[in-house]
Amino acid sequence: MMEERVRGKRPLVHHITNEVVMNFSANGLLAFGGSPVMAKEREEVADIAGAADALVLNIGTLRSSDVETMIAAGKAANEKGIPILLDPVGAGASTFRKNAVRKITEELDVAVVKGNAGEIAALADIPLKVKGVDSEESGDSTDIALRASEKLNTCVVVTGATDIVAENGNYTTSSYGSPLLTQVTGSGCLLGTLIAACLTVEDEKEKAVLFAVEFYNKAAERAEANSHGPGSFAVSLLDELGGDV
Amino acid sequence: MMEERVRGKRPLVHHITNEVVMNFSANGLLAFGGSPVMAKEREEVADIAGAADALVLNIGTLRSSDVETMIAAGKAANEKGIPILLDPVGAGASTFRKNAVRKITEELDVAVVKGNAGEIAALADIPLKVKGVDSEESGDSTDIALRASEKLNTCVVVTGATDIVAENGNYTTSSYGSPLLTQVTGSGCLLGTLIAACLTVEDEKEKAVLFAVEFYNKAAERAEANSHGPGSFAVSLLDELGGDV
Amino acid sequence: MMEERVRGKRPLVHHITNEVVMNFSANGLLAFGGSPVMAKEREEVADIAGAADALVLNIGTLRSSDVETMIAAGKAANEKGIPILLDPVGAGASTFRKNAVRKITEELDVAVVKGNAGEIAALADIPLKVKGVDSEESGDSTDIALRASEKLNTCVVVTGATDIVAENGNYTTSSYGSPLLTQVTGSGCLLGTLIAACLTVEDEKEKAVLFAVEFYNKAAERAEANSHGPGSFAVSLLDELGGDV
Repeated sequence: MMEERVRGKRPLVHHITNEVVMNFSANGLLAFGGSPVMAKEREEVADIAGAADALVLNIGTLRSSDVETMIAAGKAANEKGIPILLDPVGAGASTFRKNAVRKITEELDVAVVKGNAGEIAALADIPLKVKGVDSEESGDSTDIALRASEKLNTCVVVTGATDIVAENGNYTTSSYGSPLLTQVTGSGCLLGTLIAACLTVEDEKEKAVLFAVEFYNKAAERAEANSHGPGSFAVSLLDELGGDV
Repeated sequence: MMEERVRGKRPLVHHITNEVVMNFSANGLLAFGGSPVMAKEREEVADIAGAADALVLNIGTLRSSDVETMIAAGKAANEKGIPILLDPVGAGASTFRKNAVRKITEELDVAVVKGNAGEIAALADIPLKVKGVDSEESGDSTDIALRASEKLNTCVVVTGATDIVAENGNYTTSSYGSPLLTQVTGSGCLLGTLIAACLTVEDEKEKAVLFAVEFYNKAAERAEANSHGPGSFAVSLLDELGGDV
Repeated sequence: MMEERVRGKRPLVHHITNEVVMNFSANGLLAFGGSPVMAKEREEVADIAGAADALVLNIGTLRSSDVETMIAAGKAANEKGIPILLDPVGAGASTFRKNAVRKITEELDVAVVKGNAGEIAALADIPLKVKGVDSEESGDSTDIALRASEKLNTCVVVTGATDIVAENGNYTTSSYGSPLLTQVTGSGCLLGTLIAACLTVEDEKEKAVLFAVEFYNKAAERAEANSHGPGSFAVSLLDELGGDV
């Protein structure tokens, strides 16, 4: 199974990510069998990305100067040929974020873009109501995934009660998971991290993405069964990431 | 009950807060039924605050440039008429923090200031021994609350074994809670977040504040009963925030 | 026992540390009986360090401007005579980090340097394979500890399955602990925090360090017995830090 290939390789995933979820993403990746490194100083990101197996770019608490840093890291990643996962957190919440994401997708070859319907719609310029960093699940998520995938010419994951993976005009859906995921900050960000880890052991991109989506959501289902609310659910989710699909 | 009105509205609370507690504050607000957004880039804070239902300003790991950012967000919040909750973490610990808090309270219309006795005393220029970001509970907390409320002309919450809510020369006390709260970093910050959420559904300010204080501390009492120490207490506290008062 | 002396003193430990572990370090210190303060604004760090009982410098998510800030805080700490614990996270992962650590050790009188074999080897210019912020445990850790201790002329702790404490050409080992510690981000950083706390109540440096190492790893053994994976282990570890050795 793919989780065993990840554990065997123990891929180093360089994160330039938001401050809210750093700890949860790092612990989730360790539980899953990967190795996290968080570094966002402009002077070192090319060195760090150049030594890594994958790069995660997450704009959750982006600062203005971070955009240039992400692009520097991303260029090192592209040069080395390691996958980049972009998580456009709250892309529709401000012009600043929208412009940042646009610049990142223009300058870098991104392997996978993952977000909720609102975030992906903002990327693809599809009008949609957005509330903070979370989006209402109105609109056709499948349509959003397909249009964004075509526009960005890459693999797009739209998360929600049903997760959609789209590329090259095709899409697949997956409907595992737990409603408690929406009550844990960074649960979507952690999925991005796990996708990045799976991309390091599987060349068939859609296969890697779907595996991560399914593995993570099944772990969430098991965690829900052991929990009394969102606090114990998050703890149990970390426990379950070391298990099997 | 007020917690149901919060869950029905799912208020978006914009935080400019410290890096230590971001994750816990976000998870606590999600558990309580609100929606957190963390953003501190000067270029976007007015957009984010302008879309939010409340704003939390917390100086726990303040940088020099954050003061201007907080004021920009606060002005957008004042213009829109949404409440601002100020948490002057460690206000007495350095001249830098004291000056920052002074500037924030001078430039903005703050709905509620919440802190421990030492922090509030620093704001109101009442001499008090302070140890780091926590203060000794010597001195008369009620007197501190009343004087600070008068001086700042706003609602002031002084937290401690007994919590005091003061405004317009009046005060109310509440004595629920758990000693384990003092062993969890950001437990006071999370209370500030919940107060901000309650202010979005209740115009009577003192009523909203007292509800949040009581709800939170009763949840802490239930959490203590289910815990074996500060680690499991913090987890259980998040679980309990989804319950009823 | 030393843990009781810490609880009696409740030492204030100033951290300039990485964003991934801030929350876990703060909660771990609170559970152990100390009082954390996190501050990294250049304008206030001398004030904060000057009021503290110990200083922890951790370069995990170091920014360029943080180096000067750490040195300013460290000079205040040296002037006051309080111990400095340096945690050179990922020191071998980039030239930037290596130079930063070198500058810090040159400018400051550091009481204890704590890291894994790769990090300490990078400090002492001993070639060793490094993977991200974690290092392969090849090479002779004892030799690395002794050489680094001699070169830096201070107490050095090399963590691993066996922990080594070296100073003045002598060394002691300790082999308690749990493999789950390697699956929790910041578990090593928290050990650094606890060492700093113990240094505030015990003048015999090696005694303080060994106590912290042993206490922490025995707590980890108890936590492992109560856990179902890395998530519940981390929670249980915090619970156990309030116990006895």
